[in-house]
Amino acid sequence: MMLPLLPQDMRFSKIGEQLSGGSGIETLMEDLGQALSGKHPAPLMLGGGNPAHIPEIEAIWKQKLQTIANSQDLLRRTLSIYDPPRGNPSTLEALANLINTVFHWNITPENIAVTPGGQTAFFLLFNLLSGTRSDGSMGRILFPSIPEYIGYANQAAEPGSFTTLRPDILQTGPHQFRYSINLAAVEETKDISAICLSRPTNPSGNVVDDSTLHHLAHIAQERGIPLLIDNAYGKPFPNILFRDVTPPWNASTVHVLSLSKLGLPGTRTAFIIGPPKIAKAVQSMMAVAGLANTNIGQSVITDLLTDHSIIPICNNIITPFYRAKRDHALAVAQQQFDDHLPYAFHETDGALFLWLWLKDSPLPAHDIYLRLKEKGVLVVPGEPFFFGPAAADWNHARECIRISFAMENSVVERGLTLIGTELSKIYRSPSP
Amino acid sequence: MMLPLLPQDMRFSKIGEQLSGGSGIETLMEDLGQALSGKHPAPLMLGGGNPAHIPEIEAIWKQKLQTIANSQDLLRRTLSIYDPPRGNPSTLEALANLINTVFHWNITPENIAVTPGGQTAFFLLFNLLSGTRSDGSMGRILFPSIPEYIGYANQAAEPGSFTTLRPDILQTGPHQFRYSINLAAVEETKDISAICLSRPTNPSGNVVDDSTLHHLAHIAQERGIPLLIDNAYGKPFPNILFRDVTPPWNASTVHVLSLSKLGLPGTRTAFIIGPPKIAKAVQSMMAVAGLANTNIGQSVITDLLTDHSIIPICNNIITPFYRAKRDHALAVAQQQFDDHLPYAFHETDGALFLWLWLKDSPLPAHDIYLRLKEKGVLVVPGEPFFFGPAAADWNHARECIRISFAMENSVVERGLTLIGTELSKIYRSPSP
Repeated sequence: MMLPLLPQDMRFSKIGEQLSGGSGIETLMEDLGQALSGKHPAPLMLGGGNPAHIPEIEAIWKQKLQTIANSQDLLRRTLSIYDPPRGNPSTLEALANLINTVFHWNITPENIAVTPGGQTAFFLLFNLLSGTRSDGSMGRILFPSIPEYIGYANQAAEPGSFTTLRPDILQTGPHQFRYSINLAAVEETKDISAICLSRPTNPSGNVVDDSTLHHLAHIAQERGIPLLIDNAYGKPFPNILFRDVTPPWNASTVHVLSLSKLGLPGTRTAFIIGPPKIAKAVQSMMAVAGLANTNIGQSVITDLLTDHSIIPICNNIITPFYRAKRDHALAVAQQQFDDHLPYAFHETDGALFLWLWLKDSPLPAHDIYLRLKEKGVLVVPGEPFFFGPAAADWNHARECIRISFAMENSVVERGLTLIGTELSKIYRSPSP
Repeated sequence: MMLPLLPQDMRFSKIGEQLSGGSGIETLMEDLGQALSGKHPAPLMLGGGNPAHIPEIEAIWKQKLQTIANSQDLLRRTLSIYDPPRGNPSTLEALANLINTVFHWNITPENIAVTPGGQTAFFLLFNLLSGTRSDGSMGRILFPSIPEYIGYANQAAEPGSFTTLRPDILQTGPHQFRYSINLAAVEETKDISAICLSRPTNPSGNVVDDSTLHHLAHIAQERGIPLLIDNAYGKPFPNILFRDVTPPWNASTVHVLSLSKLGLPGTRTAFIIGPPKIAKAVQSMMAVAGLANTNIGQSVITDLLTDHSIIPICNNIITPFYRAKRDHALAVAQQQFDDHLPYAFHETDGALFLWLWLKDSPLPAHDIYLRLKEKGVLVVPGEPFFFGPAAADWNHARECIRISFAMENSVVERGLTLIGTELSKIYRSPSP
């Protein structure tokens, strides 16, 4: 029975419009996914946040997947059963033991919940902790320093759930700068229900120093609100950190760890570690929103958590790999960018990115992104990393672009060379 | 720096409370997950909806996983890259071609979006289509016949987003009955933004007949609202259907297909097939809520979609397997249940369950569930499958339990025997 096609006048809810209205992260993931999934010829891909393919790491995944494929029991556990909504009990236990050994936090599986990636972890946490409460009051998440991760910007189901602050900008070299959180402004921001930051910061590569972060942890604890720390690039894994840090831990701290930047983004696996009340709430939300987690990431990683070998793998392979990539990318940029241009990179203390500030740029970053895309090099324009009230009327928010250095050196070189050439043109005469 | 632990007075939003407040599906998944993930001794597991481990099917997964593990390219695509938010382009294309061959719907990848399982597909669809709209009006999903899938009950971010109707109950044999959708009541229900049902119905095993479903599709199209059809057990895969049906398709139809009941629940992979506007909205919501999908399910299945071999696999292996399981379970129950008890099974036209109606039961189903759990057999109590306005004050809603027949025959036999014994006791004298 074929009915004639009618116009599609289906109407969406406010939440539906909010979440489906398009976002910076969607554009980024489309660019990235289309470049990587092989349907379109990949340009010079310095956008996105895909981790590198490190041969020693890939060998581990290969061996683990072969082990799974060759064991009926492991194969079933990986593909053919539903885990409990909180995650696989063995994985939770292994992670708790690892964390207690490395950080001495004295946690149990009650402190942990698995989610299908860090993006979903924050989607659940933000909507748990912000928005209208049953007494009519409003929970708001404070991002104490923007730019922050582009993927947060559209995650609140309710508008007005996020508030943001500008950091101080410190010029630390001729072509180098740092953001610094304004703690006094944080202290003055009342009526918030959580504080959130990524460390290392995506996009800037900033690693907020221990004393500042412990100060934030203290503020959160005093107010009885969670401090949410996104460790996607941090400790204990993948440890894409180029300075040593000690993560804070108290009854208000929530850390999110992820397997993505270890090299397993396709598995969508992250861990929330926090107070039992939060872990339990996330488990319940996962059951309702997703039934259970995907098992493959946990299957691949659990042995490495159990025997703690994940730690030397990160410290001896992953950290030095990305440190060398960062040094190489900075050297190329220094060589290829006209020294007379007023550009500056944020000091990259961690993560996979150069965060390029184009002071007084004659073109907004989004136009530069489009122009570079046309030339065959993909970057991420900076505008969507600046969100919330602090982004309004801030020139800086249109002067930055994010450049990944995770791809092969030859791609990074060609990409940065092309960017250097375009920047010279743009500063000379903005129209193409 | 160790701070003293403070009481956890973090406050949750209304949405947070709504989604984290506990649910039937969470209890079910906890029971199931703990029984299957190996931390606790598995009882006679007739609860949950885990599919069976069919040797011929497991051999396929094993071979596919070995192929992936042994190819650097496939391994990377499976574990180490982010796909676009809509899903892997090759998978989308293969599915569109398969659907066009089997159903002649003339769809393209623009009609499809991948989600991490059917549960998440419905979470996104319900919150896209129901709740307060920007003009202040309210979208509501109509479930034209409860009992419906337990996992829907708590998925709306906003209370009052669901409305439900009671079916007619037809006694079709001494211990056999059917639900029948009241189409007149559907016609009379105004002010709805979508209609939703599962087919085969979870929990009852009902398969709504073609003429009724096409009538619903017509109503939906006339009103310009989506008809959401959950094909978790349906066509074209896994085809756990014991009568032939033709799924409807028009500009308002949204089908959700899943890999779970094929034997891949641990991969969390489902497909939404519907109008481009809906598929695009789901893609956008996925980007915001989850960044990308997990790749493993798509990696394992794409070849079987491309060469259409998924169809004979389902028709020649999966369908007859579950048909034999159903026949076996019904025969055991007939033998073990006291013929004088006023029990009846819904006719099982599809899915993995016997839906047992205990007429005038002296105990509510939830108490029977607890009593059976104590005896070592897990079932799912019926109450949470009855939700929304139609569930109120309906005795029938406390008289049903769902029994899976997917486990090994010996487990099903021992479980049903034990249930039969307990039922005789309960009807004789309800207190233990």
